[in-house]
Amino acid sequence: MIIIGERINGMFLDVRKAIQTKDKSVIQELARKQTSCGANYLDVNVGPASDDPKSAIVWLVETIQEVVDTPIAIDVYTKFEVMEAGVKACKKGKVMINSTNGTEKKLKNLIPLAAEWDATIIGLCMDDRGIPSDTDYRVEVAGNILVSAMEHGISADRVFIDPIINPINVSQDQFNHVLASIRTIKENISPECHFVVGLSNVSQGTKKRELINRTALVMLAAVGLDAAIADPMDTELMDAMITTEILLNKIIYNDSYLEAYRKCF
Amino acid sequence: MIIIGERINGMFLDVRKAIQTKDKSVIQELARKQTSCGANYLDVNVGPASDDPKSAIVWLVETIQEVVDTPIAIDVYTKFEVMEAGVKACKKGKVMINSTNGTEKKLKNLIPLAAEWDATIIGLCMDDRGIPSDTDYRVEVAGNILVSAMEHGISADRVFIDPIINPINVSQDQFNHVLASIRTIKENISPECHFVVGLSNVSQGTKKRELINRTALVMLAAVGLDAAIADPMDTELMDAMITTEILLNKIIYNDSYLEAYRKCF
Repeated sequence: MIIIGERINGMFLDVRKAIQTKDKSVIQELARKQTSCGANYLDVNVGPASDDPKSAIVWLVETIQEVVDTPIAIDVYTKFEVMEAGVKACKKGKVMINSTNGTEKKLKNLIPLAAEWDATIIGLCMDDRGIPSDTDYRVEVAGNILVSAMEHGISADRVFIDPIINPINVSQDQFNHVLASIRTIKENISPECHFVVGLSNVSQGTKKRELINRTALVMLAAVGLDAAIADPMDTELMDAMITTEILLNKIIYNDSYLEAYRKCF
Repeated sequence: MIIIGERINGMFLDVRKAIQTKDKSVIQELARKQTSCGANYLDVNVGPASDDPKSAIVWLVETIQEVVDTPIAIDVYTKFEVMEAGVKACKKGKVMINSTNGTEKKLKNLIPLAAEWDATIIGLCMDDRGIPSDTDYRVEVAGNILVSAMEHGISADRVFIDPIINPINVSQDQFNHVLASIRTIKENISPECHFVVGLSNVSQGTKKRELINRTALVMLAAVGLDAAIADPMDTELMDAMITTEILLNKIIYNDSYLEAYRKCF
């Protein structure tokens, strides 16, 4: 499972304040800590922290790359120029673009950017029709994103399809569709792409966030999820994730498998 | 998820001693405690505790039924007369026969017994060829068991197919086959049967038994497992199980969903 550390996001107050005061130490500590806990990528999102998101994302990327080599996922929802600036600032490893979706505008801008910078790209299963409400819609949008990527020379294994998880306390019927859409895409679309979720969405507004997060992650791993934007500093989440890797025979069992996995970071 | 409480088994030293000394209090306390923790059935297995397993199983069943109404799963591996005596002793709820498998001898004896006593029955995915080593074999044996059951008027929803979990430290490749066989049977065999596992087998001999047990249970729930022989007194296991029920939209979310579930017992 590829863990994309979620913590460098202006939605968190400590990160917001660090962006506003240009306090490198907070950002660098989060970069180091997430990496040492097992993050394979670091998600970087300015969020509502700055009126100049383009400068802010470049500052964040440069600040992080001063202390770790962990590849970065540039997480920008709206402005193309912010995404482009973030991608260009990444000098270490393969950058991830987080995210495109199935709208014509996004595909037209972001797929060529991914092709140009040899990036991996997250594709959200939504388009101009709005938020997904069933399996078929998710599968259809995933297919469109994959076709667009391959038309630009981006192989399917550089595409991370995100079927979009909803908060369980609001849209309780949607998690089954997320499971089903991963299964359906795996069984019907070739060559194989990756699957990613923004894990903590599932527990937004609930009282048992960590339990719901890790249970969802383990269920998704069972049907083929291979990446998650999540908090690698949540030890129980990581224990559960590493144990799925054992059960799926992806890493070899030994009595100290948790410690052995963690020694790789 | 149907939880079949595993603790009244002569393999556990406290139970073995209680059987040998006819100490009702130990058995009745385990019956009460497992029931109050959420067991939907109580598995009852004499194991190596007695030279007279027929008398011992009847004593166990009668002892349990003095204090709880929880239905019982009679767990006998070899002797038909022990199974038959146990089944006949059950006066409360629908008895479960644990277990038949795909061998001609077992099917010939146990399927008619289940039909006669209106029992549910666990069918292990193994036959004269031995322990399963892949998905196809499991699916083939499951099909044979279901055909045999239906020929005797036992509807598929009274059959619990057990794809057989191996210890992860010995047969690490088999868990993927267990996941795949549940998916394959669900997609290809109609009408629908149930699926059960002897959960704690997966962690036999490992150092992280509880973590591996609950991670396996959650993964299996994601592909359709609906029953497990497990320890309902393992609070974290039950928390994880209840959370899968929320995520699968089987029980309605509320902020106190763990407590609400437990109040039903």
